[in-house]
Amino acid sequence: MVSERLIKQIEFIVEVDKLKRIFRQNVVIGTTQQENDAEHSWHLALMAIFLSEHSSAETLDILRVLKMLLIHDLVEIHAGDTFCYDVKGNQDKSEREQRSADKLFNLLPSDQAQEVMDLWREFEKMETPEALFAASLDRLQPLLLNYHTHGHTWQRPGINSEKVLSRNKVLEQPVPLLWEYVKDVIEDCINKGYLVR
Amino acid sequence: MVSERLIKQIEFIVEVDKLKRIFRQNVVIGTTQQENDAEHSWHLALMAIFLSEHSSAETLDILRVLKMLLIHDLVEIHAGDTFCYDVKGNQDKSEREQRSADKLFNLLPSDQAQEVMDLWREFEKMETPEALFAASLDRLQPLLLNYHTHGHTWQRPGINSEKVLSRNKVLEQPVPLLWEYVKDVIEDCINKGYLVR
Repeated sequence: MVSERLIKQIEFIVEVDKLKRIFRQNVVIGTTQQENDAEHSWHLALMAIFLSEHSSAETLDILRVLKMLLIHDLVEIHAGDTFCYDVKGNQDKSEREQRSADKLFNLLPSDQAQEVMDLWREFEKMETPEALFAASLDRLQPLLLNYHTHGHTWQRPGINSEKVLSRNKVLEQPVPLLWEYVKDVIEDCINKGYLVR
Repeated sequence: MVSERLIKQIEFIVEVDKLKRIFRQNVVIGTTQQENDAEHSWHLALMAIFLSEHSSAETLDILRVLKMLLIHDLVEIHAGDTFCYDVKGNQDKSEREQRSADKLFNLLPSDQAQEVMDLWREFEKMETPEALFAASLDRLQPLLLNYHTHGHTWQRPGINSEKVLSRNKVLEQPVPLLWEYVKDVIEDCINKGYLVR
């Protein structure tokens, strides 16, 4: 006898397949294939495993970091991907995403709906060491893709090194070594012509 | 000063971007887009979070399950995806994958290369509760995709319900409730004409 609880869990799992259809601004290295949110989320989670030693926090709950990264973009299933440098699109972003979260997470049994809502809010607030570490990886990963695709998303009008640096500054406190690395990469990208100063 | 250790970690992280280019047999629900290994790995990790309560194990280290799922297909970057019902392709699979593991994991600092090699071997052996749970999800996820794409990969010659049932039987001990669910799904797929008896 399959329980109602399991049916809800499976419905959610099937629904979130749609994350594979939410395309981002970056392309996969060496291709013209636009990266999607599922691939991006996998990449961040993998990065968390191998980079957690660089966190400046005294203790870091890596399981919570992984959970956060795996669910952080689910709200884009209904709200869509908003380009980080799109000022207009970012004005109503949080309202659109909250509506999407309510709709999506409530497919789950209520205790799990609450757990994922809490994880998503923690990620968005960027206050705990886990959320700050997760947010840092969420900045570093697209930067790495841009570095290896001749600055693919940085070719748009209005993007310059100051904006990229400012967006990545979130790494400074949670992962100082990675922040040093990011500054080196940005400098190298300017020199290579991938990013305008 | 960026350390040699960090350089190695970043090289690995950039290299594994290629997992997004390893295409599987399934399609993403509602599309003709072939699923790739990165999306698949993300989906499994997400499932692990919400289904772990169904494990029959007394204790389950969910962090190790997540790590295993996030890395379990990396070896396909050099070895390629082998269709599970492809008898010939499966003959030299483990040798190809071991070579790929050696090449890929050794990009990392040696302690992390060892950690990921151990995780991958544990997953492949299917002996620990964590590996059995992870392997169960690795069977369940493509079954769910097939269920929602009219049996997309089951239309090939030689695939029938007996083979699908036998491949999924690994769920019986680690997640009995999910095994019951899988049997119901297979029966429903036969009735709907997605799978031949």
